[in-house]
Amino acid sequence: MILVLKPKTEEDKILELMKTLENENIRVERTKGVDYTILALIGDTRTVNEGSIESSGIVHRLIRVQEPYKQVNRLFHPDNSTVKVGDCEIGGKEFTMIAGPCSVESEEQLLAVAHEVKKSGAKFLRGGAFKPRTSPYSFQGLGSKGLELLKLAKKETGLYIVSELLSVDWLERFVEDVDIIQIGARNMQNFSLLKELGRTDKPVILKRGLSATMEEWLMSAEYIISEGNKNVILCERGIRTFENYTRNTFDVSAIPMVKHYSHLPVLADPSHATGLWWMVEPLAKAAVVAGADGLMIEVHPNPAMALSDGAQSLKPETYRNLMNEINILLDRTGKNAEELKQ
Amino acid sequence: MILVLKPKTEEDKILELMKTLENENIRVERTKGVDYTILALIGDTRTVNEGSIESSGIVHRLIRVQEPYKQVNRLFHPDNSTVKVGDCEIGGKEFTMIAGPCSVESEEQLLAVAHEVKKSGAKFLRGGAFKPRTSPYSFQGLGSKGLELLKLAKKETGLYIVSELLSVDWLERFVEDVDIIQIGARNMQNFSLLKELGRTDKPVILKRGLSATMEEWLMSAEYIISEGNKNVILCERGIRTFENYTRNTFDVSAIPMVKHYSHLPVLADPSHATGLWWMVEPLAKAAVVAGADGLMIEVHPNPAMALSDGAQSLKPETYRNLMNEINILLDRTGKNAEELKQ
Amino acid sequence: MILVLKPKTEEDKILELMKTLENENIRVERTKGVDYTILALIGDTRTVNEGSIESSGIVHRLIRVQEPYKQVNRLFHPDNSTVKVGDCEIGGKEFTMIAGPCSVESEEQLLAVAHEVKKSGAKFLRGGAFKPRTSPYSFQGLGSKGLELLKLAKKETGLYIVSELLSVDWLERFVEDVDIIQIGARNMQNFSLLKELGRTDKPVILKRGLSATMEEWLMSAEYIISEGNKNVILCERGIRTFENYTRNTFDVSAIPMVKHYSHLPVLADPSHATGLWWMVEPLAKAAVVAGADGLMIEVHPNPAMALSDGAQSLKPETYRNLMNEINILLDRTGKNAEELKQ
Amino acid sequence: MILVLKPKTEEDKILELMKTLENENIRVERTKGVDYTILALIGDTRTVNEGSIESSGIVHRLIRVQEPYKQVNRLFHPDNSTVKVGDCEIGGKEFTMIAGPCSVESEEQLLAVAHEVKKSGAKFLRGGAFKPRTSPYSFQGLGSKGLELLKLAKKETGLYIVSELLSVDWLERFVEDVDIIQIGARNMQNFSLLKELGRTDKPVILKRGLSATMEEWLMSAEYIISEGNKNVILCERGIRTFENYTRNTFDVSAIPMVKHYSHLPVLADPSHATGLWWMVEPLAKAAVVAGADGLMIEVHPNPAMALSDGAQSLKPETYRNLMNEINILLDRTGKNAEELKQ
Repeated sequence: MILVLKPKTEEDKILELMKTLENENIRVERTKGVDYTILALIGDTRTVNEGSIESSGIVHRLIRVQEPYKQVNRLFHPDNSTVKVGDCEIGGKEFTMIAGPCSVESEEQLLAVAHEVKKSGAKFLRGGAFKPRTSPYSFQGLGSKGLELLKLAKKETGLYIVSELLSVDWLERFVEDVDIIQIGARNMQNFSLLKELGRTDKPVILKRGLSATMEEWLMSAEYIISEGNKNVILCERGIRTFENYTRNTFDVSAIPMVKHYSHLPVLADPSHATGLWWMVEPLAKAAVVAGADGLMIEVHPNPAMALSDGAQSLKPETYRNLMNEINILLDRTGKNAEELKQ
Repeated sequence: MILVLKPKTEEDKILELMKTLENENIRVERTKGVDYTILALIGDTRTVNEGSIESSGIVHRLIRVQEPYKQVNRLFHPDNSTVKVGDCEIGGKEFTMIAGPCSVESEEQLLAVAHEVKKSGAKFLRGGAFKPRTSPYSFQGLGSKGLELLKLAKKETGLYIVSELLSVDWLERFVEDVDIIQIGARNMQNFSLLKELGRTDKPVILKRGLSATMEEWLMSAEYIISEGNKNVILCERGIRTFENYTRNTFDVSAIPMVKHYSHLPVLADPSHATGLWWMVEPLAKAAVVAGADGLMIEVHPNPAMALSDGAQSLKPETYRNLMNEINILLDRTGKNAEELKQ
Repeated sequence: MILVLKPKTEEDKILELMKTLENENIRVERTKGVDYTILALIGDTRTVNEGSIESSGIVHRLIRVQEPYKQVNRLFHPDNSTVKVGDCEIGGKEFTMIAGPCSVESEEQLLAVAHEVKKSGAKFLRGGAFKPRTSPYSFQGLGSKGLELLKLAKKETGLYIVSELLSVDWLERFVEDVDIIQIGARNMQNFSLLKELGRTDKPVILKRGLSATMEEWLMSAEYIISEGNKNVILCERGIRTFENYTRNTFDVSAIPMVKHYSHLPVLADPSHATGLWWMVEPLAKAAVVAGADGLMIEVHPNPAMALSDGAQSLKPETYRNLMNEINILLDRTGKNAEELKQ
Repeated sequence: MILVLKPKTEEDKILELMKTLENENIRVERTKGVDYTILALIGDTRTVNEGSIESSGIVHRLIRVQEPYKQVNRLFHPDNSTVKVGDCEIGGKEFTMIAGPCSVESEEQLLAVAHEVKKSGAKFLRGGAFKPRTSPYSFQGLGSKGLELLKLAKKETGLYIVSELLSVDWLERFVEDVDIIQIGARNMQNFSLLKELGRTDKPVILKRGLSATMEEWLMSAEYIISEGNKNVILCERGIRTFENYTRNTFDVSAIPMVKHYSHLPVLADPSHATGLWWMVEPLAKAAVVAGADGLMIEVHPNPAMALSDGAQSLKPETYRNLMNEINILLDRTGKNAEELKQ
């Protein structure tokens, strides 16, 4: 950590601050610039109380040098980490396809999609049993029955199942019933939920919050991992910007950037990123070539009748065609490509 | 709701969509423009499935005419609503002052602040027992002990107490112990928590999410009210933008705008809005003259020793001086001023 | 255009507004909903005075149905348009590569890059003679001498040249000297400059403004075209968001979206989008598979000595390797791929 | 400037970078942290080539300590600067009121407004002769005739006149005809225009760009001042965010923040900030109490007939009532109030 002190700070105040810091086992090196004095803080500064330093009244700027995350930081863990689910290894050599309807609506709907996406090569079935909807008047999911249907689909198809958890109340049930727990964008900073997930060993897909910086996203992953659960998978799903032709702005840069700073696997969800089915293809491909470890895609047997997110759902045959395109890309480039050097 | 159909849509597809809608008890009026055909949907369209309409493939744009919120909408409830806590009426004639430390840290700290802010005219004491921190390595609050100290402070000073709830697990305890439950920005769309709050009758301060539109904020209020709890108070606390000289951008426009669309009381939190104590004064005053019903302000006996948010906390004497300034403003303008007509 | 009137608007005021509109040759169709009355305005509403309608005091919301752009709108021009420069056709079958240094710095530098990028297949050489820098103390470009060097490089290599114009003062000279005039993000809404460009027939690359919506971007293209110059090429280069790990957020969705609404060719500039050389590769590939018609990429023989944008410039050999990757992608997918149907 | 080097950087590369810097007359102090080595650069680092440093390949982060602006920096000019126009001193003790129509439309319109706003205490008349409109099909202003009408209004009323300049072509004429040249949000980074303004001594109102950080805004002011013209006045007018109930988000924090970092006068334009006349009052008051030196407000004799921005224009009598409110505030608080200390 670096402290830039205000110009003309009195010597005794500088000494007082240095002493306070040294009492916290921080070594302080002082440099006198033209207008500013600089203090470099050496040691483990992650627990240093920033607010207290700032309120000393003599600090012009406080600059963190270390990233605030440690366990998710590639600096301390240079190799990619992977998350195992049965015979699949997310973040490993194989590209991960997760597909299925936004909401579980009925046995017919779910099984139809499950069989179809399996045929097109998906290993994971997604489906919401509890839906976080902006409006209390919108369909909120089938709840417990939705989970039962997901288990049935797993039994019938062998697909692993992924579903979104909204509340600690249902954690135990989810740990039992699903293969991967999804944490949605709106709960990315629901810290009490993250801590509880950290006390299980269940794989977690942590979606990026609507306005979360990559640093905050990684800090939320750190919450889970710091409690003991290392099975965290990140998922980019679009951020909120001023643009309104698209529902969100798909931040494709986040894929290589987060992989640069962290060793965790990174997926992309092109369906939520724009909210339009015909944008799924270009964004899915963009994610593949930018280095994503997998994709989550919404598929519905009849989008016009979907109880949620119909506008962004692919029909099963469209999904199949998309997978052909993606397999061609994966062949030639994509996640296993070597990075350019210069 | 208005549907703008794609140019050259075939007649039979239009008729099919109209029929589907009419089966949902929606009357449809059709207008032929130069390039586009327009369908006006008449009736209660709040429950219409937008995704399903969009995925019909013939809709160019879907435009909501009605605001999606009903119970919080001033259209159906023209008078200001107020929330009673003991002898106070938030949103009523008196301006509401809520002050106290970011976190409850100790008996000495809390009682010192409580006595001071009471002397300066506050009726409510704020203090965090459970803290939502970006980093798992930061101070997370005293938890249960924090609640005990808040009750003690209430007993000693008669101040009503306000504290932030992070998880449904603690809801029962909060309903018993505190006078107003605060829902922080990061939980504004924690819908399962909102629903549970809606089943109590405890007053709730609902802070605006970091990247929540005013419409989403009002929809989150609607979640609470639609379950039965009408005691909802909104609080603007800054939004996330590209600007980085301030931690957040305080959206002062939100105060008159949300009061325009809704009948709920609106507070402002200038401390979180920028994260800098010396910005609290201008922003607090701006909120007052823009029509806020009250303020939440962080006060700490020794900001340099605060375990959280020291940089934005006022010392008790600064708070007293600020209150003098605000009382002058309230005398002459502010929440009870008449609006301009033209 | 659709007008949603305020609830309980008096009949005579509605009639007055309808009459005003009909005097402007707009046909008005009226629909009575449950809470709102709706007026659909039929005819060419692009020139209707929105402010005047809104200030009538009876309009709750004004909704444009038609896009405000006409000449760039794919609705009225379904086929892709292309821009010819010598034997190249931007937006046509061939993918367009524009490469070169951020700034023209010297004959040696420019010729070295020009020969290298030509060898790697570029047809266009970019290089700034006038640089728009945030700071008045930064290198502002070689000016006139930079243009001379670009012409020399063209003579030596046969590459077409692209350079950024900052001011109307230099328009005549640019029309003479360069093959494509680039308008940078900061001048995207410099309307007097756009109008003057519209009066030439010189090809123009119009970069998206830092916070320009796609609609505003297309409206700026409309400015040029409405004056007569149809040779407009769009270029996505990243938008401003809250994220700060990247300098800008590359909006890959803009590529398919702008091609959906408009017939103009669309390029991408991955160098400016993040400001980091090692991000150029994943973003360049993402742009290719998302359907871009070409790329602009910064290349410098010695990035560490570059007078501007060194951090985002590729070395010539890195550029060559990138082009190999891109050619593989173009073989199998990319701009000439067929779109999925569903 | 501070450089944080990548972990495990080789010694010889560090020495090489240090040598390069020392050749530019920069003293370098080196500190070894736990994971990172830090180089503190001492001297005038404003002209150091950041890109070149970053592209050395060994720098993890480059952090500027000094603000990049010098002449506008309060650090080197602690007292408020003021701009004199005739007998007025903007930024001085008196609060500055600039009022008038968005566009000059006719003699009748302009004179009517001029007389009215003068009666209500304004000293400056604003009016656009050249209008920067998003659409080429919207009213673009009366041009030269508009300037003539402004001069006439000045002659009739004695009001000083303010008008927006769009292009260098008209600079000479504006210097002659108007008292203050306004540079609009879209031209805030039109650097060639800024430089030319810097070569005059005409007062300039520099509006904040739609997505300009405060730092960029101050750098644009620096462009003008570094060429010799010290008569720069800043004006906050709302920034672009994700919120869409308001056209822009009025950043009231920018007023105290920019006054903190800079000595320049700061105005606010509440009319453009939201685009709605009934929001002008609360935002104008907020700006006053936040410490603005003055306001720019749109007034039109008949907003419903305005050729531009009718929805945000006040009627003259509304303006008069607003001024009464503002005068009360100025009496008791506002720009001459003393800041709180703590």
